[in-house]
Amino acid sequence: MQSELGGDQVEGRQAVIELLATGRRPVRRVLLAEEQEPSAQLDRIEELAARLRVPVETVPRPRLDAHARTESNQGVVALAQPIEPVALEDLCRPTPSGRQPFLLVAAGLTDPRNLGALLRSADGAGVTGVVLPRHRSVRLSPTVTKTAAGAIEHLRFASVGGIPAALSVLTELGVWSIGLAGESSQSIYDLPLGVGPIAIVVGNEEKGLPALVRRRCDAVVSIPQHGQLPSLNVGVAGAVACFEVARQRQAASSS
Amino acid sequence: MQSELGGDQVEGRQAVIELLATGRRPVRRVLLAEEQEPSAQLDRIEELAARLRVPVETVPRPRLDAHARTESNQGVVALAQPIEPVALEDLCRPTPSGRQPFLLVAAGLTDPRNLGALLRSADGAGVTGVVLPRHRSVRLSPTVTKTAAGAIEHLRFASVGGIPAALSVLTELGVWSIGLAGESSQSIYDLPLGVGPIAIVVGNEEKGLPALVRRRCDAVVSIPQHGQLPSLNVGVAGAVACFEVARQRQAASSS
Repeated sequence: MQSELGGDQVEGRQAVIELLATGRRPVRRVLLAEEQEPSAQLDRIEELAARLRVPVETVPRPRLDAHARTESNQGVVALAQPIEPVALEDLCRPTPSGRQPFLLVAAGLTDPRNLGALLRSADGAGVTGVVLPRHRSVRLSPTVTKTAAGAIEHLRFASVGGIPAALSVLTELGVWSIGLAGESSQSIYDLPLGVGPIAIVVGNEEKGLPALVRRRCDAVVSIPQHGQLPSLNVGVAGAVACFEVARQRQAASSS
Repeated sequence: MQSELGGDQVEGRQAVIELLATGRRPVRRVLLAEEQEPSAQLDRIEELAARLRVPVETVPRPRLDAHARTESNQGVVALAQPIEPVALEDLCRPTPSGRQPFLLVAAGLTDPRNLGALLRSADGAGVTGVVLPRHRSVRLSPTVTKTAAGAIEHLRFASVGGIPAALSVLTELGVWSIGLAGESSQSIYDLPLGVGPIAIVVGNEEKGLPALVRRRCDAVVSIPQHGQLPSLNVGVAGAVACFEVARQRQAASSS
């Protein structure tokens, strides 16, 4: 159960700083490459690890690289307890600080860099929970954690058997699900997104939203395109949609 | 002069399709890796090349990879005439189709993937021209062209000696320049972006906007953050800003 989401190996300086600073899950040890240039980020990692009594091992660069699973570990790898999923139903309730559910549903993303980038953006937009399918999707691999730059330490994740069934649960619990599909003629900017529980649903990089997922969404919208290329990168489309939700929510709360 | 922007080596299937289909610059030849799985994209490349009488060479994969300069060339490399820059002043006039200037100024981006992703998003948002500094910045390298997925074939580029001087030219020519800086207390959503010539200015991944660039911007704004991480990826921040301009322009033109 604990390992179904992954997240147990965290690479890259910012991601490891957030892992240690957030302290949401135990860190077993931190590996640092020998002979790195001095850096404020490395100092911060050592300081945080010392405070938390997490063992820090300095190892030759080739040994670190052999252990690492991303191209650019920046000389830092941390081993931690995997991220524990929460129940989907929990994501559908207001947060302890009273924020309405604002979910991101990743229905079949396969590129770990896209998922990582999208999670970083989602944190910035104020997403309160992420829904990932248990199968046929990317987990919180080292590439995801690195690209997310620490966002996985702050987000809550539900891991579900199937996205269509999860969308039915969202509907039952009053969460309005909005699928992104480049070919939809309805613009996201025509939807009222400022109030109430909401979920943004993004599909696969090549194939978009699976047919059944699409049918279970309460609305399917596009981000109007003004250029020559057919579509946006899925991580960018998800980010633009999440920030449109954030914009409308802020406008609604200050009016 | 012709090679100052780069763009002469284009890798990846979508980028090569756009290069050939747009036909804005001569293509010298296309290299394809041998023994690839059949694909609609490869068929399209061969069809377009045949129509344009561009020589297509099928070569063993190791030879293609030796020639390629990106990690993921998808078995396709095209050699073309470099992208020719246009004068900054030309970018400050309405386009032939009558669109107001909507510029993107990249003041010191160094990661080619960030620039490529941002160019793809810029095309989608309707950006009419891109300003790149001639020095200390990434050029239109194969990684940029690959990540931009063909956007460089549609965008116009000015290559300038210095961004601060270019911003002064924009101001003289009536283009309102808006710098993005995560730490600014002014929100981008409070600016009227729907009418008139505009330029979005993004800075370096680590250091943000250089001080002099910042001073020459007519406004410096942030995208309000609602999460735990300090800032967005610069490519995502640029995309969110460009789509906010697009949203306001569309709303202004339909009202």
